[in-house]
Amino acid sequence: MAVQDGRRLRIMSGMRPTGRLHLGHLVGALTQWVAFSREYDAFFEIADLHALTTAYEHPEAVGPARDEMVIDWIAAGVDPAQTTIFQQSLVPQISELLVLLSMIVPVSWLQRVPTYKDQIAALGPHVATYGFFGYPLLQLCDIAVFRADTVPVGRDQVSHLEFGREVVRRFNHLYGPTLVEAQPTLSEFPEVPGIDGRKMSKSYNNAIDIADDEAATTKKVRSMITDPQKIHRGDPGRPEICPVFALHHLANAERLPEIERGCKSGALGCVPCKMELADGLNRMLRPVRDRRAEIDPASVAAVVEEGSARARGIAEATVRDVKRALKL
Amino acid sequence: MAVQDGRRLRIMSGMRPTGRLHLGHLVGALTQWVAFSREYDAFFEIADLHALTTAYEHPEAVGPARDEMVIDWIAAGVDPAQTTIFQQSLVPQISELLVLLSMIVPVSWLQRVPTYKDQIAALGPHVATYGFFGYPLLQLCDIAVFRADTVPVGRDQVSHLEFGREVVRRFNHLYGPTLVEAQPTLSEFPEVPGIDGRKMSKSYNNAIDIADDEAATTKKVRSMITDPQKIHRGDPGRPEICPVFALHHLANAERLPEIERGCKSGALGCVPCKMELADGLNRMLRPVRDRRAEIDPASVAAVVEEGSARARGIAEATVRDVKRALKL
Repeated sequence: MAVQDGRRLRIMSGMRPTGRLHLGHLVGALTQWVAFSREYDAFFEIADLHALTTAYEHPEAVGPARDEMVIDWIAAGVDPAQTTIFQQSLVPQISELLVLLSMIVPVSWLQRVPTYKDQIAALGPHVATYGFFGYPLLQLCDIAVFRADTVPVGRDQVSHLEFGREVVRRFNHLYGPTLVEAQPTLSEFPEVPGIDGRKMSKSYNNAIDIADDEAATTKKVRSMITDPQKIHRGDPGRPEICPVFALHHLANAERLPEIERGCKSGALGCVPCKMELADGLNRMLRPVRDRRAEIDPASVAAVVEEGSARARGIAEATVRDVKRALKL
Repeated sequence: MAVQDGRRLRIMSGMRPTGRLHLGHLVGALTQWVAFSREYDAFFEIADLHALTTAYEHPEAVGPARDEMVIDWIAAGVDPAQTTIFQQSLVPQISELLVLLSMIVPVSWLQRVPTYKDQIAALGPHVATYGFFGYPLLQLCDIAVFRADTVPVGRDQVSHLEFGREVVRRFNHLYGPTLVEAQPTLSEFPEVPGIDGRKMSKSYNNAIDIADDEAATTKKVRSMITDPQKIHRGDPGRPEICPVFALHHLANAERLPEIERGCKSGALGCVPCKMELADGLNRMLRPVRDRRAEIDPASVAAVVEEGSARARGIAEATVRDVKRALKL
């Protein structure tokens, strides 16, 4: 257990509700979250306000996506009784803290965060809203309002965390020590390829979802593109360029050397190779899917409500301290 | 009474807590507020979050300033039993609404509001914070969260109101009719000169405060600069350039023609002219000061707490509707 001065350390992470999660989420973030929950007092956020920054034109997708996502979290092993699962928009103190901290955040600091211009270039000028501009500040408020000691950050989020730490230092410098500067826990996962070889992603429509059934998984795997030079059994293949082989890393790690040999020699045809992958993935996902089937979707609302109430209690104390520091 | 469809119309206004108010506030905003309270369901805001936008380096002044300001409001005739006096930072729904609306406000709309660049030029680059940049949006949230039908606006605030109406239209267009587009009630007061002839302002240190006693008022008036060409009784004066004469407009309106004649002819010396002004101002301020003396400063906290609770109830309903429109 991560303990300091007799206190269990707190970790905070979150996901934007975009619906069902896939294999990439499972072997990346979720497996790590389950490990974190054993060590830390863990807070997991349904980042629905963050989802609005880019999805404001179609917010109707955000609500239903919440339940599917939380069911996947729990199925993956995140225990609502041992962690705090909460919804960002149900914790008004996050917004209160944002307005209070906004007064000391120079516009130039936000302009310097590289993701802002990158995302506008990628997504189009319609995302250049006041809310999107303040994305890193909202993210800081998620963390700071719970006084999280650490947050897992991927390489693309390092600039956000640095920004947030700078804001905390400025606040504590101006008004006395009040907020906690969260430390990063660097978390880089190997990229999981989708069935088309590109990074697995909902938006590429190439994902194997946690919630897929076994037949759907098998069908997706059978449709995968392999080495285009390997047409018949007997043709030698190049596993290093084959997405089927890449996924064998996850599902059949102990059989990798044998599969590699069979592919290269031509002895292993693509059809049985895919069948072995489908079986491996289904075997790997079975316990998660079994748990998923047991979760009553109607129970999610109560989980989120309870977690959000706990989150509000802690956030309330932080906002009270911040207001006191500001002499309001 | 301003009524529409059987419903009393709502008006919303506010002041940043900067301490004791002066004659300029009294004959300008406060007299109008008292008149509004007879017509409208009136909401008066202690805009402490707005005060932070420019005072964030010295927030310790904001808290104590609140009580002095509210005592002046009540002394001027604003009736806490007939109106809703509330504190901005005690209504978290204002901040919630800000974060929600921030998602649909293009950065370019805020850049277009002329006061932003003007104020940075006037106050210095340290005010260019994310919060200050969002000032017109916070102002809109003050209004929209109470579904105010109208707001009194001076000429310098017209661009803010226009911005706010544009945001409301955008929200209603994207998600269906939810927020109210407040209509402006144009309110221009004649500028009240201070004892140095410049606009009366706390920051110029030239103000006659509501809370001054009569001796202090007399002393301030006696120190006023008059027409520099009028040195002795008998010298003809130029009332049109004299701040003493300008203040006679407020205190001794019915005696103006006579004072003007006396000044111009030289028959009225500056010392008796000032004495008459001091007497007039003290007479005019007496009922307000008498009420002020009767107000128990300890009662202000309860007034603000009650008003803020009422404000929260109404704001909560608006935020619920906004979240519903966003399908959160």
